[in-house]
Amino acid sequence: MMNIGIIGAGRIGKVHCESIMRYVKNATVKAIADPFLNEETKAWATSLGVKEFYTDYHRILEDKDIKAVLICSSTDTHSPISLEAIAAGKHVFCEKPVDHDIAKILEVKKALLAHPELKYQVGFNRRFDHNFRAAREALEQGKLGELNVLKVCSRDPGAPPVSYIKVSGGIFLDMTIHDFDMVRYMSGSEVEEVFAYGTVLVDPAIGEAGDIDTAVISMKLRNGALAVIDNCRRASYGYDQRVEVFGSKGQVAIGNDTVSSAVISDATGVHAEKPLFFFLERYMQAYVAEINAFIDAVENDKPVSVDIESGLQAVVIGLAAKKSLLEGRPVKLSEIQ
Amino acid sequence: MMNIGIIGAGRIGKVHCESIMRYVKNATVKAIADPFLNEETKAWATSLGVKEFYTDYHRILEDKDIKAVLICSSTDTHSPISLEAIAAGKHVFCEKPVDHDIAKILEVKKALLAHPELKYQVGFNRRFDHNFRAAREALEQGKLGELNVLKVCSRDPGAPPVSYIKVSGGIFLDMTIHDFDMVRYMSGSEVEEVFAYGTVLVDPAIGEAGDIDTAVISMKLRNGALAVIDNCRRASYGYDQRVEVFGSKGQVAIGNDTVSSAVISDATGVHAEKPLFFFLERYMQAYVAEINAFIDAVENDKPVSVDIESGLQAVVIGLAAKKSLLEGRPVKLSEIQ
Amino acid sequence: MMNIGIIGAGRIGKVHCESIMRYVKNATVKAIADPFLNEETKAWATSLGVKEFYTDYHRILEDKDIKAVLICSSTDTHSPISLEAIAAGKHVFCEKPVDHDIAKILEVKKALLAHPELKYQVGFNRRFDHNFRAAREALEQGKLGELNVLKVCSRDPGAPPVSYIKVSGGIFLDMTIHDFDMVRYMSGSEVEEVFAYGTVLVDPAIGEAGDIDTAVISMKLRNGALAVIDNCRRASYGYDQRVEVFGSKGQVAIGNDTVSSAVISDATGVHAEKPLFFFLERYMQAYVAEINAFIDAVENDKPVSVDIESGLQAVVIGLAAKKSLLEGRPVKLSEIQ
Amino acid sequence: MMNIGIIGAGRIGKVHCESIMRYVKNATVKAIADPFLNEETKAWATSLGVKEFYTDYHRILEDKDIKAVLICSSTDTHSPISLEAIAAGKHVFCEKPVDHDIAKILEVKKALLAHPELKYQVGFNRRFDHNFRAAREALEQGKLGELNVLKVCSRDPGAPPVSYIKVSGGIFLDMTIHDFDMVRYMSGSEVEEVFAYGTVLVDPAIGEAGDIDTAVISMKLRNGALAVIDNCRRASYGYDQRVEVFGSKGQVAIGNDTVSSAVISDATGVHAEKPLFFFLERYMQAYVAEINAFIDAVENDKPVSVDIESGLQAVVIGLAAKKSLLEGRPVKLSEIQ
Repeated sequence: MMNIGIIGAGRIGKVHCESIMRYVKNATVKAIADPFLNEETKAWATSLGVKEFYTDYHRILEDKDIKAVLICSSTDTHSPISLEAIAAGKHVFCEKPVDHDIAKILEVKKALLAHPELKYQVGFNRRFDHNFRAAREALEQGKLGELNVLKVCSRDPGAPPVSYIKVSGGIFLDMTIHDFDMVRYMSGSEVEEVFAYGTVLVDPAIGEAGDIDTAVISMKLRNGALAVIDNCRRASYGYDQRVEVFGSKGQVAIGNDTVSSAVISDATGVHAEKPLFFFLERYMQAYVAEINAFIDAVENDKPVSVDIESGLQAVVIGLAAKKSLLEGRPVKLSEIQ
Repeated sequence: MMNIGIIGAGRIGKVHCESIMRYVKNATVKAIADPFLNEETKAWATSLGVKEFYTDYHRILEDKDIKAVLICSSTDTHSPISLEAIAAGKHVFCEKPVDHDIAKILEVKKALLAHPELKYQVGFNRRFDHNFRAAREALEQGKLGELNVLKVCSRDPGAPPVSYIKVSGGIFLDMTIHDFDMVRYMSGSEVEEVFAYGTVLVDPAIGEAGDIDTAVISMKLRNGALAVIDNCRRASYGYDQRVEVFGSKGQVAIGNDTVSSAVISDATGVHAEKPLFFFLERYMQAYVAEINAFIDAVENDKPVSVDIESGLQAVVIGLAAKKSLLEGRPVKLSEIQ
Repeated sequence: MMNIGIIGAGRIGKVHCESIMRYVKNATVKAIADPFLNEETKAWATSLGVKEFYTDYHRILEDKDIKAVLICSSTDTHSPISLEAIAAGKHVFCEKPVDHDIAKILEVKKALLAHPELKYQVGFNRRFDHNFRAAREALEQGKLGELNVLKVCSRDPGAPPVSYIKVSGGIFLDMTIHDFDMVRYMSGSEVEEVFAYGTVLVDPAIGEAGDIDTAVISMKLRNGALAVIDNCRRASYGYDQRVEVFGSKGQVAIGNDTVSSAVISDATGVHAEKPLFFFLERYMQAYVAEINAFIDAVENDKPVSVDIESGLQAVVIGLAAKKSLLEGRPVKLSEIQ
Repeated sequence: MMNIGIIGAGRIGKVHCESIMRYVKNATVKAIADPFLNEETKAWATSLGVKEFYTDYHRILEDKDIKAVLICSSTDTHSPISLEAIAAGKHVFCEKPVDHDIAKILEVKKALLAHPELKYQVGFNRRFDHNFRAAREALEQGKLGELNVLKVCSRDPGAPPVSYIKVSGGIFLDMTIHDFDMVRYMSGSEVEEVFAYGTVLVDPAIGEAGDIDTAVISMKLRNGALAVIDNCRRASYGYDQRVEVFGSKGQVAIGNDTVSSAVISDATGVHAEKPLFFFLERYMQAYVAEINAFIDAVENDKPVSVDIESGLQAVVIGLAAKKSLLEGRPVKLSEIQ
């Protein structure tokens, strides 16, 4: 039974805590650290079997019985805590993004090179979604031939508060970053160049905060294929997460999951269910799977599924997209790194 | 250019007239006969190119230049006019049902045996539907293996007037007769025994007229497979015409056609189009195809696609279903014929 | 934390054990009893947290700390153990069918009347399936109007061994019993009369064992609606579990669940995934939900979702279907009870 | 009965000739002119009822009984013949593109300003497709709210011969031009700026001919929305023609039409039909509808559905896309016009 410490008990920290305590067989959450840990969260975690609670995460890093940590704190703390955890000899699962600053991610990368015995996995959970896996497998198995065009559609059911938008790093580093990783994961290729159109159509306050809420981002991949992502912070019908992989021999299209397969026909039409509401519903199994994969990598000394390089590249593409939007021109990734 | 005479200019007579004049290359409607032919119909047919109009259909039978007749008059006249037309040396396309009385259909069959040079096709148009054809082909090509269970769902968008119900011969001879033919067409087998449940759920007036409006009819086929039809005189969402053919190697399912492929997702769900409204919409191409097939059979001396035996068997099954409903027991077709 | 004892550690006993230990918050499996309990099962259950193992289930009935038992033993022991458990003051979750013999189910029913403080739930798991629930809700919410025709399609991916068939009680009590319950659950009505066609198309050995493998069963419901079930012991494409509820205002159709939403288009066609393989895949969440519902009923003194009457009626319909098949006539349920 | 002359009897000229002679009620093709008119074409057209054939199209322009001409000749002759036809007082239906040269289209536009009594319609047939119409109507009716993102996917089943590619004006003016028009039609907005990625993935010979075969083109619309088109000259599964219109209140998605609704489930999966093979299959009804609309505009003095401005703008966008691809930067339409 592997002991895990969770740093940060916000929404995503709780998701991982519950995943591990309920669905993961060979690991347990020994301790949770959060400077703002309240009684309600403590009671909830206690009922799941968690025994130790700290406000200072260093207590977790000092605990010799804790083998791995999950960094679920605010984005600006990801890279410094990663460095401390690596120095403390802990395996690390770090939520995305590792940092908004390339230099800081490179520091983590450097620290990891000095500790080849430690596993470091980045929280790109969508790679573990059963649907996207099926698409990736279709391509890998040669069913689609050579990749020609990859299309990612990713829309949230509603925009987060503007207060969040302001510290989010912008839509490309906050929301599209998952789609950038999906492009790399699906294509098996690095991105060479990116061109972004973005605009404010959902909420003017988002624009006033210096961000956009609707975007179309096209990309040239190093393997010669093209890719395009379209994003929106609000889809009236819910969380829209689709992918189309078009190759020389065929195409695979991934649709949304629904609460049920019920189709109602009546005088007004033929009605099916909306997509599952948001990421907790759509990706719950993926969250469990990514933690299982991380624990498997640690326990059996396997390579992690989503390494620091993936964490780095997604941010590089995001910064390139940001620059493209700002300067109104295509931007090569080599301009960023 | 083959000359055709149409006997009966009601709804279905007009459908065939327009089909031939607009979509059939090598035939033309030379004359239409209808005792109640009004000026509006005449003007409409004239605009399509029809030149001769009679109230007495014998004028068509006497016309040496007319090679084939379409019998689209009321059901009770189908078999007597068929006999006259055969005697007059005309090829015949007869709307369904040939008659409600087995003995009268057998008379037509006998007359045809004496005139092997004449073609006689019955108007089971659904055999020419592109969807049902695809299902039949899947079975014939061995994609489904041996037939196990055949399911036919057939529902009208709304019940006809009770005045029509009263002279319709009952739901089994009026509406289900198409589905009985579909069972024979799809399965490639005769029916051995039938058991019918029927009830009145749409309109009590239908019950008062001695008929039912909702039915489930199960069947044993001579090839060992089972079949089941469900009918209703009213589906709120329109004309529901589906078939499932389940075999040892697979299943083919036929859905409804729609006006467009548009799927709208909004806050209330994911909405597709209803089925095409009724038989004129769903089967328009099938009506053209059945006439083309008939003309092809006449012109090139090929066997017709839907022969008098098919016209007979559908009525036999209908009468067996009627008896089953009345007597509350399964009825063998051998009890009817 | 409610203590539970599981009697019978075969496939379904293990399903429930894992459900409770992993997904059910407020209950735990204290003990498992099985006369043939092997070391492998013990090790597996131990790893889940089960502490006590017996060969004699009386040890569970005697344990004052165990509040409820799950009867997962062979069918012939369901009713006698139910009686003993009730006498011992245990709440009971009993796998289906309660018995093949009406008289024995009535004995359990009588015992329960004497113990109104005890909950007794029957294992009709499909009522807890997210899809079927959605269909039931659509009807309950009035979206479909009055029920007209209910259609249940239920096919297994492959037939069980003939050795199993021989002790199964026949297809109607073994397999269709779930569908009979579904008819009652969906319609909210009792069945009045049943007519069954059955045949052997999958494996002659099933016929030699005195059973059938393919069936179409039609029913008259007491609320005036009609229902039809079609079954087959083998569907080449997997576990086919669909329902259509057709009412005066609309229809709801339930399709199969799949491993992914991936749709591959290539030169040979457009390909989607097959249904989830079998009941463990399709109904895993339903198994968890039914146990949660049982525990909720016990802990909060609520009526159970699937009571002894449901256990009884499904068997009554099954025996009526058997009699119908044997005697070739429709059978009223009043002939059985 | 309106007399029409067809100039150019290649594939598309024949499509229109057959449409008019078979499906259009109030018009007839009086004459066909083609410098390379062969006997086979003559015989075919004669069988449809066409009486006059010329090698010189001026004979058609001189015919006082001919009210309208269809220009179906090679692209380079579209604008000069248009000018002559207008001068001759004919209404004109001109196949797309009007010209590759903006100046020449402007000449036609100028000529039309001097002849407001003449109708001039451009052959963007997709506007008349039943599916795309349904999408446009959903937006117009406010079901989707304000347009946010428009996505057009357009792929051919296979590339044309390289000899054709060489004179085609490039993929943007030959193939994407339809999609550019679709963006204007669907959005009801002009395009402001375009950015194109293009590459050669289908056939190196296309690249050697100076063209590309795979493209992703993103656009900023004047109404503030974004649009993206993806094209490929070859889709293994056939003619892929889809549109998604995403708005503030909902989305409409248009799928492909198929030969049948048959869905086959077998041991390898669940299989549906491929899209209709190519434009003649997918858009046959649209070809009839556009001619009917043109005749309606002429006969009843209504505005045409696709005017010269639409012919102009699609070419302007195409040239902007070409420039974008060449110069690797977004290009405003104002740079072209």
